[in-house]
Amino acid sequence: MKRTKIKAALAATGPMDEIVIKGWVRTKRDSKGFSFLELNDGSGLLNIQAVVDHTPEIEAALARIGTGASVCVTGALVESPGKGQKWEIRGRGLEVLGEADQETFPLQKKRHSDEFLRTIAHLRPRTNKYGAMFRIRSELAQAIHKFFADKGFFYIHTPIITGSDCEGAGEMFRVTSLEPGSTESADKDFFGKPAQLTVSGQLSAEMFALSLGDVYTFGPTFRAENSNTPRHVAEFWMIEPEMAFADLADNMDLGEEMIKYLVTHILDNCPDDVDLFAKWVDKDLMPTLENILKEPFKRLPYTEAIDILKNAKKEFEYPVEWGMDLQTEHERFLCEEQFKKPVYVHDYPKVIKPFYMRLNDDGRTVAAMDCLVPRIGELIGGSQREERLDMLLARMQEMRLHEEDYWWYLDSRRFGTAPHAGFGMGFERMLMLVTGVANIRDVMPFPRTPNSLEF
Amino acid sequence: MKRTKIKAALAATGPMDEIVIKGWVRTKRDSKGFSFLELNDGSGLLNIQAVVDHTPEIEAALARIGTGASVCVTGALVESPGKGQKWEIRGRGLEVLGEADQETFPLQKKRHSDEFLRTIAHLRPRTNKYGAMFRIRSELAQAIHKFFADKGFFYIHTPIITGSDCEGAGEMFRVTSLEPGSTESADKDFFGKPAQLTVSGQLSAEMFALSLGDVYTFGPTFRAENSNTPRHVAEFWMIEPEMAFADLADNMDLGEEMIKYLVTHILDNCPDDVDLFAKWVDKDLMPTLENILKEPFKRLPYTEAIDILKNAKKEFEYPVEWGMDLQTEHERFLCEEQFKKPVYVHDYPKVIKPFYMRLNDDGRTVAAMDCLVPRIGELIGGSQREERLDMLLARMQEMRLHEEDYWWYLDSRRFGTAPHAGFGMGFERMLMLVTGVANIRDVMPFPRTPNSLEF
Repeated sequence: MKRTKIKAALAATGPMDEIVIKGWVRTKRDSKGFSFLELNDGSGLLNIQAVVDHTPEIEAALARIGTGASVCVTGALVESPGKGQKWEIRGRGLEVLGEADQETFPLQKKRHSDEFLRTIAHLRPRTNKYGAMFRIRSELAQAIHKFFADKGFFYIHTPIITGSDCEGAGEMFRVTSLEPGSTESADKDFFGKPAQLTVSGQLSAEMFALSLGDVYTFGPTFRAENSNTPRHVAEFWMIEPEMAFADLADNMDLGEEMIKYLVTHILDNCPDDVDLFAKWVDKDLMPTLENILKEPFKRLPYTEAIDILKNAKKEFEYPVEWGMDLQTEHERFLCEEQFKKPVYVHDYPKVIKPFYMRLNDDGRTVAAMDCLVPRIGELIGGSQREERLDMLLARMQEMRLHEEDYWWYLDSRRFGTAPHAGFGMGFERMLMLVTGVANIRDVMPFPRTPNSLEF
Repeated sequence: MKRTKIKAALAATGPMDEIVIKGWVRTKRDSKGFSFLELNDGSGLLNIQAVVDHTPEIEAALARIGTGASVCVTGALVESPGKGQKWEIRGRGLEVLGEADQETFPLQKKRHSDEFLRTIAHLRPRTNKYGAMFRIRSELAQAIHKFFADKGFFYIHTPIITGSDCEGAGEMFRVTSLEPGSTESADKDFFGKPAQLTVSGQLSAEMFALSLGDVYTFGPTFRAENSNTPRHVAEFWMIEPEMAFADLADNMDLGEEMIKYLVTHILDNCPDDVDLFAKWVDKDLMPTLENILKEPFKRLPYTEAIDILKNAKKEFEYPVEWGMDLQTEHERFLCEEQFKKPVYVHDYPKVIKPFYMRLNDDGRTVAAMDCLVPRIGELIGGSQREERLDMLLARMQEMRLHEEDYWWYLDSRRFGTAPHAGFGMGFERMLMLVTGVANIRDVMPFPRTPNSLEF
């Protein structure tokens, strides 16, 4: 007989004479003549309770069972007399699938620190918190695909291994098939030239936007930055939509619609799992998320943002002046204190932005935008792209980029160029937003950071 | 006014007084007093025709327009008197967004070879064939997520950069942040030890199956194999489901259901684009796909497969004997000539399979399965995993693997182990199957192969 997932059993509309449940034992309580098992199979946050009588076979099985063991219970699904649960299993058969030695099993029933759980990242999804995290992570990824598919965006897999450094967005990892310490030159390497791990799929995605219209990427990106902070990892997933025939306002519209859609989707589809985070991780989680949904995001030109920051009755660590890049303290002040909601800052000075952003008519700002959200800071960064060949070439020259390295990118401006815009959103940042988890290491299956490559 | 995508315009249920179409000119034909423009914006295969009268403004615009230019046409959507199209645009305004120099634009209207189009991979999605390809690719990816989400599988992002070589599944790329030629040892490198690009997410996914039940990965994987064939690339995407409480039969059931679901989904959702491939690329495409849907897949024990091959009236390049791995010629014979449908070969000799596959009671075969399909050969490879700690350790010893490298993997067998099974499917192979395209380079945006890292 096929197993029934616990989530489905708990949602049953009536009792069932025959049911097979397989899962891991969270607790075992023995009583006179029978025992209670709390079982979880990962399908949802809530356990199902199984009550088994002490027949000789079942007693033999129970003797081998402790927290963490995997079992198969056969029996009936019946109404539970206990409170807080509608259904329980009246067990007739109990089979031990895998024992868990109680002396060495590291996940005994008690609260463990996040730091400790990182050292057993292969087991932490068996805890309530990390089970919930990875179910939400999965649902968030599904929601992203659904959002874009419903809007007619095409999903593009841009290359992971790249020969172009995109935008100088950060330090890159090298990829090689040469032996360590080899003094062979790059033309003897696998690709016949230096190869890196991508920091962004944008330039490739632009080629597809200028062919298929609306596209997006959703894939891993990499930074070889030696920073050990709660916000940085070497490998993370990024979503990068790119729209043809779109400008900066369209871009901000899309980002706002997407963020609101994702928050709504998670609240609607993961209520139990989100509750856990609202209860145990971030007491402000629900108000934070409701605030995001409530009103239109603020749209604030960079130049006005600088004025606000200059006039703020607040000491900033980094002094405020036009032309500087906003620091996290500035970003958080704007969205958490000044406007108390998500803020798009747009039209940044060109000198602090990459070459591909579209020059505004003032000649000193570009059509860039960052979306700042409470607690996270920058969640989205994007721009209208420079579609005018002569302007793009001039910017590349100013920034000392070599035309020949970008021949294909420039081709898109030579042949049927069109206004287009797009942005990038760090998937893990969005996940931190919807769960209230403060350390990026705790929203990924197996995080990669300096000196940490376990699992 | 917002643009209407051409796909939506062509599907209109009635005429529209005002419409804005933006797209690229496929052809321009001038007549006396007016011109015809065939426009495509990538939203679908079919162009829309715009008819514009020769006002002075429009004539000025037309003079700048050739194949490949991007334009904005405003006007009305009216019934088309022409055959083969229900609607056309009666254009009142014509704006040139981006010209395309007719001397240098490489995509003039004629049939181009796939080889030539690979050299302009950044422009090829503007052709009918590659536009269709990348729309199907997107739809296939969406269908994969939908299939697993609907069945309650959780999507897991397993790491791309890894310190474990998984299964010795092939040559691996090294990842480093040291300078080329550096003689520093690996403990001075970013991760403090040697790092590679993953060849499979399976071992990580198993950890999540043994926590959340049913999971899958869908991400890039890498092989540093120096082979220049129509079937090999250095970077490709793979789908790897993994199910707790499942055996080899469940695994084959899942694979068959998935393949049939994906084929059906593409036939139902991409009829125009699939038609193009059936007409121009592979005349046998439709019969091939219908054949896959028609009947249950054949399930054939390896030992019987060997008997069939030995008795076949056919000269094979590689002689057939029990214990050998099947070659492509054998695989294709079984599914194309012997059974004329997809074939699961299962229960392979343990000596040709990795350590993690479950040993059968005969002691000489493992619970492995490959799904062979016409034209492609192996589309899916998977197994029930060895969940018994003692058997797994014995296999690792036989294969001289170091226990300490796999401590976390072994933990999953120490604590609440459970039967589980999974498989891997190359995304691009599935795409080759549903389009009939024979070269893997032509189903990817920017393929990575030896000495080829352009774009």
